Amino acid sequence: MTVDEVLNDLKQKIRAQLPKDITISDVDFEGPELVIYTEEPRKFADSGDLIKSLAKDLRKRLVVRPDPKVLAQPEGAITSISKIVPPESGISNHYFDVDTGEVIIEAEKPGLVIGRHGETLREITKEIGWTPKVVRTPPMKSATVSNIRQFMRANKDERKAILKTIGRKIHRGVSSKDKWVRLTTLGACREVGRSCFLLSTPETRILIDCGVSVSGDENGTPYLYVPEVHPIGQIDAVILTHAHLDHAGLVPLLYKYGFEGPVYCTPPTRDLMALLQLDYIDVAAREGRKIPYESAMIREVLKHTITLNYGDVTDIGPDMKLTLHNAGHILGSSVAHFHVGDGLYNIAFTGDFKYEKTRLFDPAVADFPRIETVVMEATYGGSRDMQPSRKDAERHMQQLAKETLENRGCLLIPTFAVGRSQEVMIVLEEAIRKELIGNVPVYLDGMIYEATAIHTTHPEYLNNELRNQIFHKGMNPFLSKCFVQVDSKEMRQKIIDSREPCIILATSGMLNGGPVMEYLRSLGPEERNTMVFVGYQAEGTLGRRIQKGWKEVPVYAGGGRTETIKINMRIDTVDGFSGHSDRVQLLEYVRRMRPRAEHIITQHGDEKNCMDLASSIYRKFKIETRAPMNLETIRLA
Amino acid sequence: MTVDEVLNDLKQKIRAQLPKDITISDVDFEGPELVIYTEEPRKFADSGDLIKSLAKDLRKRLVVRPDPKVLAQPEGAITSISKIVPPESGISNHYFDVDTGEVIIEAEKPGLVIGRHGETLREITKEIGWTPKVVRTPPMKSATVSNIRQFMRANKDERKAILKTIGRKIHRGVSSKDKWVRLTTLGACREVGRSCFLLSTPETRILIDCGVSVSGDENGTPYLYVPEVHPIGQIDAVILTHAHLDHAGLVPLLYKYGFEGPVYCTPPTRDLMALLQLDYIDVAAREGRKIPYESAMIREVLKHTITLNYGDVTDIGPDMKLTLHNAGHILGSSVAHFHVGDGLYNIAFTGDFKYEKTRLFDPAVADFPRIETVVMEATYGGSRDMQPSRKDAERHMQQLAKETLENRGCLLIPTFAVGRSQEVMIVLEEAIRKELIGNVPVYLDGMIYEATAIHTTHPEYLNNELRNQIFHKGMNPFLSKCFVQVDSKEMRQKIIDSREPCIILATSGMLNGGPVMEYLRSLGPEERNTMVFVGYQAEGTLGRRIQKGWKEVPVYAGGGRTETIKINMRIDTVDGFSGHSDRVQLLEYVRRMRPRAEHIITQHGDEKNCMDLASSIYRKFKIETRAPMNLETIRLA
Repeated sequence: MTVDEVLNDLKQKIRAQLPKDITISDVDFEGPELVIYTEEPRKFADSGDLIKSLAKDLRKRLVVRPDPKVLAQPEGAITSISKIVPPESGISNHYFDVDTGEVIIEAEKPGLVIGRHGETLREITKEIGWTPKVVRTPPMKSATVSNIRQFMRANKDERKAILKTIGRKIHRGVSSKDKWVRLTTLGACREVGRSCFLLSTPETRILIDCGVSVSGDENGTPYLYVPEVHPIGQIDAVILTHAHLDHAGLVPLLYKYGFEGPVYCTPPTRDLMALLQLDYIDVAAREGRKIPYESAMIREVLKHTITLNYGDVTDIGPDMKLTLHNAGHILGSSVAHFHVGDGLYNIAFTGDFKYEKTRLFDPAVADFPRIETVVMEATYGGSRDMQPSRKDAERHMQQLAKETLENRGCLLIPTFAVGRSQEVMIVLEEAIRKELIGNVPVYLDGMIYEATAIHTTHPEYLNNELRNQIFHKGMNPFLSKCFVQVDSKEMRQKIIDSREPCIILATSGMLNGGPVMEYLRSLGPEERNTMVFVGYQAEGTLGRRIQKGWKEVPVYAGGGRTETIKINMRIDTVDGFSGHSDRVQLLEYVRRMRPRAEHIITQHGDEKNCMDLASSIYRKFKIETRAPMNLETIRLA
Repeated sequence: MTVDEVLNDLKQKIRAQLPKDITISDVDFEGPELVIYTEEPRKFADSGDLIKSLAKDLRKRLVVRPDPKVLAQPEGAITSISKIVPPESGISNHYFDVDTGEVIIEAEKPGLVIGRHGETLREITKEIGWTPKVVRTPPMKSATVSNIRQFMRANKDERKAILKTIGRKIHRGVSSKDKWVRLTTLGACREVGRSCFLLSTPETRILIDCGVSVSGDENGTPYLYVPEVHPIGQIDAVILTHAHLDHAGLVPLLYKYGFEGPVYCTPPTRDLMALLQLDYIDVAAREGRKIPYESAMIREVLKHTITLNYGDVTDIGPDMKLTLHNAGHILGSSVAHFHVGDGLYNIAFTGDFKYEKTRLFDPAVADFPRIETVVMEATYGGSRDMQPSRKDAERHMQQLAKETLENRGCLLIPTFAVGRSQEVMIVLEEAIRKELIGNVPVYLDGMIYEATAIHTTHPEYLNNELRNQIFHKGMNPFLSKCFVQVDSKEMRQKIIDSREPCIILATSGMLNGGPVMEYLRSLGPEERNTMVFVGYQAEGTLGRRIQKGWKEVPVYAGGGRTETIKINMRIDTVDGFSGHSDRVQLLEYVRRMRPRAEHIITQHGDEKNCMDLASSIYRKFKIETRAPMNLETIRLA
């Protein structure tokens, strides 16, 4: 069947099942969804489970949207809303989501926009056509999020055309008689960095992640030039497990190479990814390195990104369904589960995952409707890669802070902007609030503030406890007065010059550049200060050298000069904050997995760790395992 | 370096090393060779090891050819030769080989063409420019061979252009910094049939074999549609281990799909391949099946085929050298050895091979300069797949013939045209000559006569003993008067009607069509006759059913009708004539291999046998083994 035949068939079924008094103006594929346009969206909303049962019958993701005819222009709609809603509600922003026909109204007092029994909301709908959703004005402004929303609104027509093209491609008929499933390794095998996998069937080719090399080697991209990936224009989709650059950093490059398909990820992954990619090319430009792609390509990524929430089962090709599940690693991080064919095969990619409840996230999901193969990380897959408990880690961190501050020193924490920073912030906020350590400012330098703002935009991606604390107890730890954003060179200099006891979180996490270098230069030589590592220090980085005990380290000082920094400050490492599962958690994940996979592939770890984890899983659980090299193709079915 | 820079560089080096009195008119790449054209080919020939040492210095296959200017037109050359050579020499044919500038003169009395101390030959050279080579007129006329030679002469200009294009492609510079070697399985894994492998590096992609499915399933082609093979126009070369259809039957299809590169194989493989491919499409047409390609595509194959003799080390890509070695399976069958990069990796494909001296061939070569991986067949890889010794098999065959003939019956031997037929012919000829069995005619029906004629055209591909017997003792067993070709329907009917004791070799070997069916219909019901199987009978074939003991077999009788044949004749199987190594020989091959491979991949056997052989080799020799599925990619280096 051609896609037009498929669509006609669906249209007839829909019309046949709808009550006669409900009229529809159009039915079309937009991305993975089958969209019904109607001039009477209320009627649909009022007919209970109609959509749900229709979707189940048709086995499609079905959504009903107001016909564009009944949608007011955004500018006019804003005026209308302001006339209906009392000014005390404190509306701070409107986001018109052209994908869904929804308008998100941000207000300081959401109740006043909703009105008694939703009265005000209904009035708004009638007036503007758009479906209003009300949210509390986010407590921290994220420039990234508002830029992305504005960009999507400005490009709504192009975006709609893209979604229609994608939709027609997803719902094309199956043409091959052959049935097989293959996995090709394009990066991250027996190494950390440049994560990239190709999952293919006779019908569909999907890339899972497309990251940069951690070593910073400019040639260290995934093996995108091999024929399996070509023509790149015919790849069906890219799925991102999370936003870190070693997983998502080279997605813009794919568009440069001719890719035109969708990127699937969670909403926070989209926002964090844009932040990190923009920073990536910024840093490259500042350091005079080759820039792999221009910001225009990041905008292409955004135009083509289709966000999915955890648990949404979504058609991404004629023979493939994708579901994202919480991975517990960073905000929006996902275990990507693929259901291939009609019951033929199920494979999940854990991405980076944490199988432990952390301050921010629930543990990674280990239950699947069906599963044959799991591709899992092995960063800490070695038999000695045990981390201390989170409790011990927190105590250790508090102790270090206490001692340093009592000594009138500064505690410097080099950290990656997304993930560890927020985890450490919560621990420090609690320690200050509970007076376990002195009440000193906690300075956030680099992108940490912006990354934290993105966290507060997506509270539904945090764990229950933290969400409760924020919403119901009105205690958002990120808003604590102890946190101070460093937003200028002058302010940074002032902090350094004052020599007042304080805590500083600054990027980058491995001391290979970023504002942390400024602090190190001044605080390093003084014994009263402490630097504590909370993340993995890769071999060859300055962080690693200092961790090993170097007392004098050469640092690039600009203009071709190198200077030497004396390290007299106390150096320590607190291991338990990692967003990666340690050895125990990795094995526990396999033990608890339901149903148990028949085949496990280890990757995202050095050679020793990938092999060690694979053979340990085989020995303990008698599950067939494999630690492939890059550039292999494994036949799964 | 571009290929022009490479060529200029080589030209300068050649000119610098040649003595001043030798002039050259051109230097160019033609296929894998670097060709020096000269108007004075004699001077080169007279300067001893000049070419040899030059080739060693330049690390290229170097050949010297007469400048086309000094070559007479073939027609004129033939007239000139006939004027020089005495008519009693009995010249039967001239083959002008445009690739080499040689003319092969076939004569009944070669001595008269050569003349005293080569006098006549020198006179010919002076007159015609071509380098004359004299061979004895082959004792059996092969229509295939003479058609191919004539075709090549008729297309010499196109052929030269093709070789130049291929030469420039082979000698292009290496461009990638990456170094890796990958093997992708496209057929014959855990199955017998549709042999096809892709060997690839960042520079070069090579197909090894491209065969049809044995089951006859029209969809059972190798997985040529996967992206690894595309665009097919950019594949560098196809290498054929031997001519059987399950290894070479679909090469013409590649040209239909846009392949323009060379096919490398031995000269007998080329001739047998053309014979079998033409028959393949003939049979398909006769049986009303879909014809996968037209004879024009077989002609494309011939135009692009570059023949290599055993032991020739040949550049087939900028980072790959190929050497073919005797495999002992059928005439021209080869173990294909690849040397990749500059010492990076060595891999050999055994193809089908026999590790035992047979009547026709020496055992397969097991010595290599270097070897890391061997891809070997596992047809008889199961732990019980032992064959009787060849001596026992021969005795068994003689006994069956003796008893049947004494009983005034006929001995019917269904056999594949190429390989087993010639082996059995030699055994029968000896038995008749030594009067171990009665002196009866041995009828050859189907393509057996033509295939035998191709054997006599390439005596250098037979083993020493047989070659000696033919050349020095003047006893060519294939020419024995006992062999009678059946070349018409009438003759076949006469043989059947006469009911005289005789031996009949007829195709096809598994009774799925061919002239053997006519004999079976008439001889099957009579108890005094015997049918003996000498080759593998695949599951589902008529041969297999009769072997299992069926006494009544349904046979398609044309026109939609099926008739039943009663099998009252004696049925027996003689196992020892197989061209495949049995289990003991397979293991012995690994044991004797020098140096010993680090990694062995088993294929060309059913799932059980591939797995059994792989695990037995691992247990016995501690060599890492693998029995991959189709559609996998193994990273070798």
